[in-house]
Amino acid sequence: MEIDYQHIKVIGFDADDTLWVNETYFREAEEKFASLLEGYETKNKIDQELFKMEIDNLELYGYGIKGFMLSMIESALDLSNQQVPQKTIADILDIGKEMISHPVELLNDVEMVLEKLSKKYRLIVLTKGDLLDQERKLERSNLLHYFHHVEVLSDKKEQNYLNLLAHLEVPVNEFLMIGNSLKSDILPLVNIGAKAIHVPFHTTWQHEEVTENDTNGKTYHTINGLKELLKLL
Amino acid sequence: MEIDYQHIKVIGFDADDTLWVNETYFREAEEKFASLLEGYETKNKIDQELFKMEIDNLELYGYGIKGFMLSMIESALDLSNQQVPQKTIADILDIGKEMISHPVELLNDVEMVLEKLSKKYRLIVLTKGDLLDQERKLERSNLLHYFHHVEVLSDKKEQNYLNLLAHLEVPVNEFLMIGNSLKSDILPLVNIGAKAIHVPFHTTWQHEEVTENDTNGKTYHTINGLKELLKLL
Repeated sequence: MEIDYQHIKVIGFDADDTLWVNETYFREAEEKFASLLEGYETKNKIDQELFKMEIDNLELYGYGIKGFMLSMIESALDLSNQQVPQKTIADILDIGKEMISHPVELLNDVEMVLEKLSKKYRLIVLTKGDLLDQERKLERSNLLHYFHHVEVLSDKKEQNYLNLLAHLEVPVNEFLMIGNSLKSDILPLVNIGAKAIHVPFHTTWQHEEVTENDTNGKTYHTINGLKELLKLL
Repeated sequence: MEIDYQHIKVIGFDADDTLWVNETYFREAEEKFASLLEGYETKNKIDQELFKMEIDNLELYGYGIKGFMLSMIESALDLSNQQVPQKTIADILDIGKEMISHPVELLNDVEMVLEKLSKKYRLIVLTKGDLLDQERKLERSNLLHYFHHVEVLSDKKEQNYLNLLAHLEVPVNEFLMIGNSLKSDILPLVNIGAKAIHVPFHTTWQHEEVTENDTNGKTYHTINGLKELLKLL
Protein backbone atom coordinates (compact mmCIF):
# COMPACT_ATOMS: atom_id res chain seq x y z
CA MET A 1 0.00 0.00 0.00
CA GLU A 2 1.46 3.32 -1.07
CA ILE A 3 0.52 6.21 1.21
CA ASP A 4 2.24 9.51 0.80
CA TYR A 5 3.12 11.32 4.03
CA GLN A 6 5.15 14.10 2.43
CA HIS A 7 2.58 16.84 3.08
CA ILE A 8 2.35 16.02 6.79
CA LYS A 9 3.38 18.84 9.08
CA VAL A 10 1.43 18.11 12.26
CA ILE A 11 1.15 14.74 13.99
CA GLY A 12 -1.55 14.07 16.58
CA PHE A 13 -1.00 11.33 19.12
CA ASP A 14 -3.73 9.61 21.02
CA ALA A 15 -2.56 9.08 24.61
CA ASP A 16 -4.28 6.15 26.38
CA ASP A 17 -2.91 2.86 25.00
CA THR A 18 -0.87 4.73 22.39
CA LEU A 19 1.64 6.56 24.60
CA TRP A 20 0.94 4.73 27.85
CA VAL A 21 -0.97 1.76 29.27
CA ASN A 22 -4.60 2.41 30.14
CA GLU A 23 -7.11 -0.23 29.08
CA THR A 24 -5.22 -2.90 31.02
CA TYR A 25 -6.19 -1.17 34.28
CA PHE A 26 -9.85 -1.19 33.29
CA ARG A 27 -9.62 -4.94 32.56
CA GLU A 28 -8.02 -5.47 35.98
CA ALA A 29 -10.71 -3.36 37.66
CA GLU A 30 -13.42 -5.36 35.90
CA GLU A 31 -11.82 -8.57 37.23
CA LYS A 32 -11.86 -7.19 40.77
CA PHE A 33 -15.43 -6.01 40.36
CA ALA A 34 -16.50 -9.47 39.16
CA SER A 35 -14.82 -11.12 42.17
CA LEU A 36 -16.59 -8.75 44.55
CA LEU A 37 -19.96 -9.73 43.08
CA GLU A 38 -19.36 -13.40 42.34
CA GLY A 39 -22.04 -14.50 44.82
CA TYR A 40 -24.78 -12.84 42.76
CA GLU A 41 -24.17 -13.77 39.15
CA THR A 42 -21.79 -15.58 36.80
CA LYS A 43 -18.65 -13.69 35.83
CA ASN A 44 -19.91 -13.53 32.28
CA LYS A 45 -23.21 -11.94 33.30
CA ILE A 46 -21.44 -9.48 35.62
CA ASP A 47 -19.11 -8.38 32.80
CA GLN A 48 -22.04 -7.94 30.43
CA GLU A 49 -24.12 -5.96 32.88
CA LEU A 50 -21.28 -3.63 33.77
CA PHE A 51 -20.57 -2.98 30.10
CA LYS A 52 -24.25 -2.34 29.42
CA MET A 53 -24.38 0.08 32.36
CA GLU A 54 -21.32 1.96 31.09
CA ILE A 55 -22.89 2.36 27.66
CA ASP A 56 -26.24 3.43 29.14
CA ASN A 57 -24.44 6.06 31.22
CA LEU A 58 -21.99 7.17 28.54
CA GLU A 59 -24.03 10.12 27.35
CA LEU A 60 -24.44 11.33 30.93
CA TYR A 61 -20.97 10.61 32.32
CA GLY A 62 -18.71 10.62 29.27
CA TYR A 63 -15.39 8.72 29.21
CA GLY A 64 -13.12 8.32 32.19
CA ILE A 65 -12.60 6.66 35.53
CA LYS A 66 -15.17 8.60 37.59
CA GLY A 67 -18.00 7.58 35.29
CA PHE A 68 -16.68 4.02 35.38
CA MET A 69 -16.75 4.08 39.19
CA LEU A 70 -20.34 5.33 39.23
CA SER A 71 -21.35 2.63 36.72
CA MET A 72 -19.68 -0.07 38.84
CA ILE A 73 -21.64 1.11 41.89
CA GLU A 74 -24.91 1.21 39.99
CA SER A 75 -24.25 -2.27 38.51
CA ALA A 76 -23.43 -3.67 41.95
CA LEU A 77 -26.77 -2.40 43.29
CA ASP A 78 -28.65 -3.76 40.28
CA LEU A 79 -26.94 -7.16 40.08
CA SER A 80 -27.57 -7.79 43.80
CA ASN A 81 -31.10 -6.39 43.92
CA GLN A 82 -29.70 -3.79 46.33
CA GLN A 83 -28.39 -6.55 48.61
CA VAL A 84 -24.69 -5.88 47.99
CA PRO A 85 -22.87 -5.25 51.30
CA GLN A 86 -22.02 -1.60 51.99
CA LYS A 87 -18.41 -2.70 52.34
CA THR A 88 -18.43 -3.70 48.67
CA ILE A 89 -19.43 -0.17 47.67
CA ALA A 90 -16.47 1.10 49.68
CA ASP A 91 -14.24 -1.46 47.90
CA ILE A 92 -15.45 -0.23 44.51
CA LEU A 93 -14.52 3.34 45.48
CA ASP A 94 -11.06 2.04 46.38
CA ILE A 95 -10.68 0.25 43.05
CA GLY A 96 -11.41 3.53 41.24
CA LYS A 97 -9.20 5.69 43.43
CA GLU A 98 -6.35 3.27 42.81
CA MET A 99 -6.90 3.55 39.06
CA ILE A 100 -6.78 7.35 39.23
CA SER A 101 -3.57 7.34 41.27
CA HIS A 102 -1.85 4.67 39.17
CA PRO A 103 1.65 5.62 37.98
CA VAL A 104 1.99 6.20 34.25
CA GLU A 105 3.59 3.30 32.36
CA LEU A 106 4.92 4.43 28.98
CA LEU A 107 4.69 2.02 26.08
CA ASN A 108 7.82 0.85 24.23
CA ASP A 109 10.01 3.39 22.43
CA VAL A 110 7.62 6.31 23.09
CA GLU A 111 10.27 8.71 24.29
CA MET A 112 12.75 7.87 21.52
CA VAL A 113 10.11 8.17 18.80
CA LEU A 114 8.75 11.50 20.10
CA GLU A 115 12.27 12.85 20.42
CA LYS A 116 13.01 12.08 16.76
CA LEU A 117 9.68 13.14 15.31
CA SER A 118 9.57 16.37 17.30
CA LYS A 119 12.55 17.61 15.29
CA LYS A 120 10.71 17.35 12.00
CA TYR A 121 7.01 17.75 12.88
CA ARG A 122 4.74 19.73 15.17
CA LEU A 123 3.42 17.16 17.65
CA ILE A 124 0.14 17.44 19.53
CA VAL A 125 -1.76 15.19 21.92
CA LEU A 126 -5.43 14.48 21.26
CA THR A 127 -7.11 12.45 23.91
CA LYS A 128 -10.63 11.96 25.08
CA GLY A 129 -11.78 11.39 28.60
CA ASP A 130 -11.48 13.20 31.86
CA LEU A 131 -9.65 16.53 31.65
CA LEU A 132 -7.97 16.29 35.05
CA ASP A 133 -6.99 12.62 34.62
CA GLN A 134 -5.42 13.27 31.24
CA GLU A 135 -3.56 16.39 32.39
CA ARG A 136 -2.26 14.49 35.39
CA LYS A 137 -1.04 11.60 33.25
CA LEU A 138 0.72 13.92 30.82
CA GLU A 139 2.38 15.68 33.72
CA ARG A 140 3.55 12.38 35.22
CA SER A 141 4.68 11.04 31.84
CA ASN A 142 7.39 13.71 31.47
CA LEU A 143 6.46 13.88 27.79
CA LEU A 144 4.82 17.30 27.88
CA HIS A 145 7.82 19.13 26.42
CA TYR A 146 7.56 17.23 23.13
CA PHE A 147 4.12 18.65 22.41
CA HIS A 148 3.06 22.01 20.98
CA HIS A 149 -0.51 21.55 22.07
CA VAL A 150 -2.64 19.25 24.18
CA GLU A 151 -6.33 18.89 23.57
CA VAL A 152 -8.68 16.81 25.67
CA LEU A 153 -11.86 16.20 23.68
CA SER A 154 -15.17 15.03 25.08
CA ASP A 155 -15.42 12.73 22.07
CA LYS A 156 -13.42 11.85 18.98
CA LYS A 157 -15.85 12.00 16.11
CA GLU A 158 -15.27 13.55 12.68
CA GLN A 159 -16.75 16.89 13.76
CA ASN A 160 -14.55 17.06 16.86
CA TYR A 161 -11.47 16.66 14.67
CA LEU A 162 -12.68 19.16 12.08
CA ASN A 163 -13.37 21.76 14.76
CA LEU A 164 -10.00 21.23 16.35
CA LEU A 165 -8.02 21.39 13.10
CA ALA A 166 -9.88 24.58 12.18
CA HIS A 167 -9.12 26.07 15.57
CA LEU A 168 -5.42 25.15 15.29
CA GLU A 169 -5.39 26.32 11.67
CA VAL A 170 -3.97 23.02 10.45
CA PRO A 171 -5.06 22.02 6.92
CA VAL A 172 -6.58 18.54 6.90
CA ASN A 173 -4.09 17.19 4.37
CA GLU A 174 -1.15 18.23 6.58
CA PHE A 175 -2.41 16.25 9.54
CA LEU A 176 -1.56 12.70 10.57
CA MET A 177 -3.12 10.98 13.58
CA ILE A 178 -1.52 8.06 15.42
CA GLY A 179 -3.54 5.89 17.77
CA ASN A 180 -4.71 2.48 18.89
CA SER A 181 -8.45 2.89 18.35
CA LEU A 182 -9.80 2.38 14.85
CA LYS A 183 -13.07 3.94 15.89
CA SER A 184 -11.68 7.06 17.57
CA ASP A 185 -8.21 7.65 16.14
CA ILE A 186 -8.22 6.24 12.62
CA LEU A 187 -11.56 6.05 10.78
CA PRO A 188 -12.81 9.61 11.56
CA LEU A 189 -9.51 11.00 10.23
CA VAL A 190 -9.50 8.92 7.06
CA ASN A 191 -13.11 9.97 6.52
CA ILE A 192 -12.30 13.70 6.68
CA GLY A 193 -9.31 13.36 4.34
CA ALA A 194 -6.50 13.39 6.86
CA LYS A 195 -3.96 10.58 7.31
CA ALA A 196 -3.91 8.08 10.17
CA ILE A 197 -1.65 5.25 11.30
CA HIS A 198 -3.02 2.48 13.48
CA VAL A 199 -0.91 1.05 16.31
CA PRO A 200 -3.08 -1.65 17.90
CA PHE A 201 -2.90 -2.27 21.63
CA HIS A 202 -3.36 -5.83 22.86
CA THR A 203 -6.72 -5.09 24.46
CA THR A 204 -9.53 -2.84 23.22
CA TRP A 205 -12.62 -1.75 25.09
CA GLN A 206 -15.66 -3.42 23.52
CA HIS A 207 -17.20 0.01 22.89
CA GLU A 208 -14.26 0.96 20.65
CA GLU A 209 -14.47 -2.13 18.48
CA VAL A 210 -15.42 -1.77 14.82
CA THR A 211 -16.50 -4.26 12.19
CA GLU A 212 -14.82 -5.18 8.96
CA ASN A 213 -17.54 -3.22 7.22
CA ASP A 214 -16.33 -0.04 8.86
CA THR A 215 -12.74 -0.52 7.76
CA ASN A 216 -13.29 -1.95 4.28
CA GLY A 217 -11.83 0.28 1.63
CA LYS A 218 -10.27 2.68 4.14
CA THR A 219 -6.64 3.44 3.50
CA TYR A 220 -4.26 3.57 6.43
CA HIS A 221 -1.16 1.80 7.64
CA THR A 222 -1.16 -0.51 10.63
CA ILE A 223 2.12 -0.89 12.49
CA ASN A 224 3.23 -3.12 15.35
CA GLY A 225 4.77 -0.44 17.51
CA LEU A 226 5.54 3.27 17.53
CA LYS A 227 9.11 2.58 16.45
CA GLU A 228 7.87 1.61 12.98
CA LEU A 229 6.70 5.20 12.52
CA LEU A 230 10.31 6.11 11.89
CA LYS A 231 10.38 3.87 8.83
CA LEU A 232 7.17 5.34 7.38
CA LEU A 233 7.84 9.03 7.99
CA MET B 1 -12.50 53.90 41.66
CA GLU B 2 -11.08 54.70 38.23
CA ILE B 3 -10.28 51.62 36.15
CA ASP B 4 -9.43 52.03 32.52
CA TYR B 5 -10.88 49.40 30.19
CA GLN B 6 -9.85 51.07 26.95
CA HIS B 7 -7.13 48.52 26.07
CA ILE B 8 -9.48 45.58 26.48
CA LYS B 9 -9.98 43.51 23.34
CA VAL B 10 -10.88 40.09 24.71
CA ILE B 11 -13.41 39.35 27.43
CA GLY B 12 -13.47 36.01 29.23
CA PHE B 13 -16.67 34.88 30.89
CA ASP B 14 -16.88 32.35 33.65
CA ALA B 15 -19.92 30.13 33.03
CA ASP B 16 -21.31 28.52 36.21
CA ASP B 17 -23.14 31.16 38.28
CA THR B 18 -22.02 33.89 35.88
CA LEU B 19 -23.94 32.92 32.72
CA TRP B 20 -26.26 30.34 34.28
CA VAL B 21 -27.36 28.93 37.63
CA ASN B 22 -25.17 26.19 39.06
CA GLU B 23 -24.31 26.42 42.75
CA THR B 24 -28.01 26.47 43.67
CA TYR B 25 -28.32 22.87 42.44
CA PHE B 26 -25.41 21.79 44.60
CA ARG B 27 -27.10 23.43 47.63
CA GLU B 28 -30.31 21.59 46.79
CA ALA B 29 -28.45 18.30 46.40
CA GLU B 30 -26.74 18.83 49.76
CA GLU B 31 -30.18 19.35 51.35
CA LYS B 32 -31.44 16.10 49.85
CA PHE B 33 -28.29 14.29 50.93
CA ALA B 34 -28.71 15.56 54.51
CA SER B 35 -32.34 14.38 54.59
CA LEU B 36 -31.31 10.92 53.37
CA LEU B 37 -28.81 10.63 56.24
CA GLU B 38 -30.68 12.46 58.99
CA GLY B 39 -30.92 9.30 61.11
CA TYR B 40 -27.14 9.15 61.53
CA GLU B 41 -25.96 12.67 62.34
CA THR B 42 -27.12 16.27 62.74
CA LYS B 43 -27.62 18.22 59.53
CA ASN B 44 -24.72 20.42 60.49
CA LYS B 45 -22.35 17.49 60.93
CA ILE B 46 -23.52 15.90 57.67
CA ASP B 47 -22.87 19.17 55.78
CA GLN B 48 -19.44 19.49 57.32
CA GLU B 49 -18.44 15.90 56.60
CA LEU B 50 -19.57 16.08 52.99
CA PHE B 51 -17.62 19.29 52.47
CA LYS B 52 -14.54 17.77 54.09
CA MET B 53 -14.86 14.71 51.86
CA GLU B 54 -15.13 16.88 48.73
CA ILE B 55 -12.00 18.77 49.65
CA ASP B 56 -10.11 15.57 50.50
CA ASN B 57 -11.08 14.15 47.11
CA LEU B 58 -10.58 17.34 45.11
CA GLU B 59 -7.06 16.53 43.96
CA LEU B 60 -8.19 13.09 42.82
CA TYR B 61 -11.57 13.92 41.30
CA GLY B 62 -11.33 17.60 40.36
CA TYR B 63 -14.41 19.82 40.06
CA GLY B 64 -17.75 18.65 38.78
CA ILE B 65 -20.83 16.60 39.48
CA LYS B 66 -19.32 13.11 39.11
CA GLY B 67 -16.74 13.77 41.79
CA PHE B 68 -19.48 15.26 43.96
CA MET B 69 -21.55 12.08 43.53
CA LEU B 70 -18.61 9.89 44.52
CA SER B 71 -17.94 12.07 47.57
CA MET B 72 -21.61 11.88 48.62
CA ILE B 73 -21.45 8.07 48.41
CA GLU B 74 -18.21 7.90 50.39
CA SER B 75 -19.61 10.30 53.02
CA ALA B 76 -22.80 8.28 53.34
CA LEU B 77 -20.74 5.14 54.03
CA ASP B 78 -18.53 6.96 56.54
CA LEU B 79 -21.29 8.84 58.38
CA SER B 80 -23.31 5.64 58.84
CA ASN B 81 -20.37 3.35 59.67
CA GLN B 82 -21.28 1.47 56.50
CA GLN B 83 -24.83 0.96 57.77
CA VAL B 84 -26.52 3.21 55.20
CA PRO B 85 -29.23 1.28 53.30
CA GLN B 86 -28.28 0.25 49.76
CA LYS B 87 -31.38 2.12 48.59
CA THR B 88 -29.82 5.36 49.83
CA ILE B 89 -26.77 4.80 47.60
CA ALA B 90 -29.17 4.36 44.68
CA ASP B 91 -30.92 7.60 45.72
CA ILE B 92 -27.61 9.45 45.75
CA LEU B 93 -26.90 8.26 42.19
CA ASP B 94 -30.31 9.63 41.20
CA ILE B 95 -29.60 13.00 42.83
CA GLY B 96 -26.43 13.29 40.76
CA LYS B 97 -27.96 12.12 37.51
CA GLU B 98 -30.70 14.68 37.94
CA MET B 99 -28.10 17.42 38.43
CA ILE B 100 -26.31 16.39 35.23
CA SER B 101 -29.54 16.39 33.21
CA HIS B 102 -30.86 19.66 34.67
CA PRO B 103 -31.95 22.21 32.05
CA VAL B 104 -29.75 25.29 31.79
CA GLU B 105 -31.23 28.39 33.47
CA LEU B 106 -29.61 31.55 32.15
CA LEU B 107 -29.08 34.42 34.57
CA ASN B 108 -30.67 37.83 33.96
CA ASP B 109 -29.76 39.80 30.84
CA VAL B 110 -27.08 37.31 29.73
CA GLU B 111 -28.22 37.10 26.13
CA MET B 112 -28.70 40.85 25.72
CA VAL B 113 -25.30 41.65 27.25
CA LEU B 114 -23.44 39.07 25.16
CA GLU B 115 -25.19 40.28 22.03
CA LYS B 116 -24.02 43.86 22.62
CA LEU B 117 -20.50 43.06 23.80
CA SER B 118 -19.88 40.57 21.00
CA LYS B 119 -20.04 43.46 18.51
CA LYS B 120 -17.12 45.24 20.12
CA TYR B 121 -15.02 42.53 21.77
CA ARG B 122 -13.82 39.01 21.21
CA LEU B 123 -15.69 36.92 23.79
CA ILE B 124 -14.47 33.63 25.21
CA VAL B 125 -15.76 31.25 27.87
CA LEU B 126 -13.38 30.06 30.58
CA THR B 127 -14.83 27.53 32.92
CA LYS B 128 -13.47 24.86 35.17
CA GLY B 129 -15.01 21.52 35.91
CA ASP B 130 -16.07 18.58 33.89
CA LEU B 131 -15.43 18.87 30.16
CA LEU B 132 -18.54 17.01 29.03
CA ASP B 133 -20.84 18.77 31.54
CA GLN B 134 -19.63 22.19 30.49
CA GLU B 135 -19.85 21.45 26.77
CA ARG B 136 -23.36 20.12 27.26
CA LYS B 137 -24.45 23.22 29.18
CA LEU B 138 -23.01 25.54 26.54
CA GLU B 139 -24.80 23.58 23.87
CA ARG B 140 -28.09 23.78 25.74
CA SER B 141 -27.63 27.46 26.56
CA ASN B 142 -27.80 28.49 22.89
CA LEU B 143 -25.05 30.99 23.67
CA LEU B 144 -22.26 29.22 21.80
CA HIS B 145 -22.44 31.51 18.75
CA TYR B 146 -21.39 34.54 20.82
CA PHE B 147 -18.03 33.02 21.68
CA HIS B 148 -14.81 32.80 19.66
CA HIS B 149 -13.36 30.19 21.94
CA VAL B 150 -14.36 27.93 24.80
CA GLU B 151 -11.82 26.62 27.24
CA VAL B 152 -12.55 24.20 30.05
CA LEU B 153 -9.70 24.35 32.54
CA SER B 154 -8.95 21.77 35.20
CA ASP B 155 -8.29 24.68 37.58
CA LYS B 156 -8.31 28.47 37.50
CA LYS B 157 -5.04 29.53 39.07
CA GLU B 158 -2.70 32.26 37.83
CA GLN B 159 -0.62 29.80 35.81
CA ASN B 160 -3.69 28.33 34.08
CA TYR B 161 -4.66 31.83 32.92
CA LEU B 162 -1.12 32.71 31.84
CA ASN B 163 -0.83 29.50 29.79
CA LEU B 164 -4.17 30.07 28.15
CA LEU B 165 -3.55 33.72 27.26
CA ALA B 166 -0.18 32.74 25.80
CA HIS B 167 -1.79 29.98 23.78
CA LEU B 168 -4.49 32.36 22.49
CA GLU B 169 -1.88 35.05 21.89
CA VAL B 170 -3.83 37.58 23.94
CA PRO B 171 -1.64 40.16 25.74
CA VAL B 172 -2.46 40.25 29.46
CA ASN B 173 -3.37 43.96 29.40
CA GLU B 174 -5.96 43.40 26.68
CA PHE B 175 -7.83 40.79 28.70
CA LEU B 176 -10.80 41.27 31.01
CA MET B 177 -12.37 38.42 32.97
CA ILE B 178 -15.96 38.45 34.26
CA GLY B 179 -17.09 36.03 36.94
CA ASN B 180 -18.74 35.34 40.26
CA SER B 181 -15.81 33.75 42.10
CA LEU B 182 -13.23 36.07 43.65
CA LYS B 183 -10.90 33.13 44.11
CA SER B 184 -11.13 31.69 40.59
CA ASP B 185 -12.26 34.51 38.30
CA ILE B 186 -11.00 37.74 39.83
CA LEU B 187 -7.92 37.58 42.07
CA PRO B 188 -5.71 35.42 39.78
CA LEU B 189 -6.36 37.88 36.93
CA VAL B 190 -5.68 40.98 38.98
CA ASN B 191 -2.49 39.30 40.20
CA ILE B 192 -1.18 38.67 36.67
CA GLY B 193 -1.97 42.21 35.51
CA ALA B 194 -5.18 41.59 33.63
CA LYS B 195 -8.53 43.22 34.46
CA ALA B 196 -11.45 41.53 36.17
CA ILE B 197 -15.03 42.46 37.09
CA HIS B 198 -16.79 40.67 39.89
CA VAL B 199 -20.48 39.76 39.57
CA PRO B 200 -21.37 38.02 42.85
CA PHE B 201 -23.89 35.19 42.84
CA HIS B 202 -26.13 34.83 45.89
CA THR B 203 -24.48 31.61 47.00
CA THR B 204 -20.81 30.62 46.88
CA TRP B 205 -19.29 27.22 47.52
CA GLN B 206 -17.32 27.35 50.77
CA HIS B 207 -14.20 26.21 48.89
CA GLU B 208 -14.34 29.34 46.71
CA GLU B 209 -14.57 31.78 49.60
CA VAL B 210 -11.72 34.21 50.23
CA THR B 211 -10.85 36.43 53.16
CA GLU B 212 -10.60 40.18 53.31
CA ASN B 213 -6.85 39.70 53.43
CA ASP B 214 -6.91 38.20 49.96
CA THR B 215 -8.84 41.07 48.44
CA ASN B 216 -7.27 44.01 50.30
CA GLY B 217 -5.57 46.39 47.92
CA LYS B 218 -6.76 44.54 44.83
CA THR B 219 -8.36 46.76 42.22
CA TYR B 220 -11.48 45.51 40.47
CA HIS B 221 -15.09 46.56 40.04
CA THR B 222 -17.95 44.70 41.61
CA ILE B 223 -21.32 44.94 39.87
CA ASN B 224 -24.80 43.72 40.76
CA GLY B 225 -25.62 42.07 37.47
CA LEU B 226 -24.19 41.54 33.99
CA LYS B 227 -26.24 44.46 32.65
CA GLU B 228 -24.01 46.89 34.53
CA LEU B 229 -21.12 45.78 32.30
CA LEU B 230 -22.63 47.92 29.57
CA LYS B 231 -22.11 51.01 31.70
CA LEU B 232 -18.48 50.20 32.45
CA LEU B 233 -17.35 49.12 28.99
